[in-house]
Amino acid sequence: MSSSDTASITRMPFDDLQRLLQAIFQRHGCSPEVASVLAHNCASAQRDGAHSHGVFRMPGYVSTLASGWVDGQAQPQVSEVAAGFISVDARGGFAQPALAAARERLEDKARAAGIAVLAIHNSHHFAALWPDVEPFAEAGLIALSVVNSMTCVVPHGAHKPLFGTNPIAFAAPCHGAAPIVFDMATSAMAHGDVQIAARAGEQLPPGTGVDAAGQPTCDPRAVLDGGALLPFGGHKGSALSMMVELLAAGLTGGHFSWEFDWSRHPGAKTPWTGQLLIVIDPSKASGEGFALRSQRLVEQMHAAGLTRLPGQRRFQERAIAQRQGVALTQAELTQLRAL
Amino acid sequence: MSSSDTASITRMPFDDLQRLLQAIFQRHGCSPEVASVLAHNCASAQRDGAHSHGVFRMPGYVSTLASGWVDGQAQPQVSEVAAGFISVDARGGFAQPALAAARERLEDKARAAGIAVLAIHNSHHFAALWPDVEPFAEAGLIALSVVNSMTCVVPHGAHKPLFGTNPIAFAAPCHGAAPIVFDMATSAMAHGDVQIAARAGEQLPPGTGVDAAGQPTCDPRAVLDGGALLPFGGHKGSALSMMVELLAAGLTGGHFSWEFDWSRHPGAKTPWTGQLLIVIDPSKASGEGFALRSQRLVEQMHAAGLTRLPGQRRFQERAIAQRQGVALTQAELTQLRAL
Repeated sequence: MSSSDTASITRMPFDDLQRLLQAIFQRHGCSPEVASVLAHNCASAQRDGAHSHGVFRMPGYVSTLASGWVDGQAQPQVSEVAAGFISVDARGGFAQPALAAARERLEDKARAAGIAVLAIHNSHHFAALWPDVEPFAEAGLIALSVVNSMTCVVPHGAHKPLFGTNPIAFAAPCHGAAPIVFDMATSAMAHGDVQIAARAGEQLPPGTGVDAAGQPTCDPRAVLDGGALLPFGGHKGSALSMMVELLAAGLTGGHFSWEFDWSRHPGAKTPWTGQLLIVIDPSKASGEGFALRSQRLVEQMHAAGLTRLPGQRRFQERAIAQRQGVALTQAELTQLRAL
Repeated sequence: MSSSDTASITRMPFDDLQRLLQAIFQRHGCSPEVASVLAHNCASAQRDGAHSHGVFRMPGYVSTLASGWVDGQAQPQVSEVAAGFISVDARGGFAQPALAAARERLEDKARAAGIAVLAIHNSHHFAALWPDVEPFAEAGLIALSVVNSMTCVVPHGAHKPLFGTNPIAFAAPCHGAAPIVFDMATSAMAHGDVQIAARAGEQLPPGTGVDAAGQPTCDPRAVLDGGALLPFGGHKGSALSMMVELLAAGLTGGHFSWEFDWSRHPGAKTPWTGQLLIVIDPSKASGEGFALRSQRLVEQMHAAGLTRLPGQRRFQERAIAQRQGVALTQAELTQLRAL
């Protein structure tokens, strides 16, 4: 959905959309605190044109809450275990409130020690990862995060799925510009984008996935219906996905992508795993200001012919949404009001 | 070179090879301390079958030292700038002695704070990256490192080279087994492997590189002769390569991959950049022992049909070398003796 595709588009102020989403989350069992965090996250994705993590996700949140799979009232338990290490037990709730509960202390530790790590376990992450890292870059810090999901990716060279889509997100400040931010599934395609392709009746690029028999397919429904995704970039993407399992689950105490059983919770969509965030204070290192160095890199990337940098489209969509409101299709709005 | 390819192979005890390489480094201007670190690194790569970083590199080291481009006598300056942050000025020397000078303090900081970062700048890295991270995993820690190199990779969507091959290496302990270790160029192929293909007269896989005119080519000589490499995995590998520039150069105070000019040092081969290492103590997090969790992941990867895990071939080659000596071709041995 581009900004020029205005035929069936309604635009709503960000705050109104957030309030509407918050009411939905609360109606379906979330505490006000959890609902506020999730509503801001989901509205931000919609605002930035990240549609696979925008209001598209709301039916999944609602069916998950209805299934009793996730605790919408969970109060995360934060433990400061070392000068640079915070551990959070999300207590079966969503990952975003767990991060919110630790964010300030994580930033303080990173500024004091130069680097700090946040290990979240017993958590459900059903959103984009860039909203978790971007605010650190806006505060002048560098952030890296990984989260594992549910088994749907066949490791390179294996014959059955094991890993999740296991994204990696990174954010760094840039002088005179929005932060440099990327958020990439280590699968060839994000799971939400496969669902969107299936809904739209579109084909997937070759190399994206396999069907239930393990054969390559470009049909998104075949991938979703007993098939699986492949890692991006062959054995290298597969190794990165393995690293995400080790960091987001092995290190945090969360479940690996295959270690939870939601079969007794029909409607459950959220992987019950873990998440790791590493935050670095670049002012501690030698050399000129980091944000000026980022700016220099961006200049050179433009000079090499790059017309779009990672994260740039989101910031462009955001600027439009701030002027005109957040774009929703009429169908999306109708669905939200029904929820 | 496989272990069964024994026709023209000489085998030499590891210590003898290390002594021979140390003598070469010292003869060509390295201090005994620097020579010892580099000789151990290079002999380890040869021992483990990582031939693009084994004795294959020695002529490049020698010509670089002869050119005056790198200071083989440099004494790295270590600064502990925060509870979890060490900065090292390699003073125009090699990166490995800079890491060696800080390794113990880095490990101490990681165990105390839960996480620590080492930022090396003003350094030359001409070796594999896995030897830098593997020892931390052997000590029960998790390590991640990135290093940028010299401009030879066209960012995805750009029309001229900017990034280096910019590898990422990761190591984690695994109960009852060798550590899980990977070391991957973020280019479609490592530069050393392109050189080896050129020497062997072999073709590159499609998508590896472009020629001097920017056109796709499978000829390694066309890549080396004014051409360039492509990132692995399209825009995702390209974003990771950008992240490596930001972390290894932007953060450390080192040069970006395009920021040094070695034109007045004919024979210089070593990129004058920076390196970042992050070390995490997994014992700080909740949950069962990390190494047992790694073991569980490895079991599941085998159950999914993986016959070879990252780093495994190196450990197999190492085991053979420990019994039989390190394999060298007769040509390699002759060349070493000439140096």
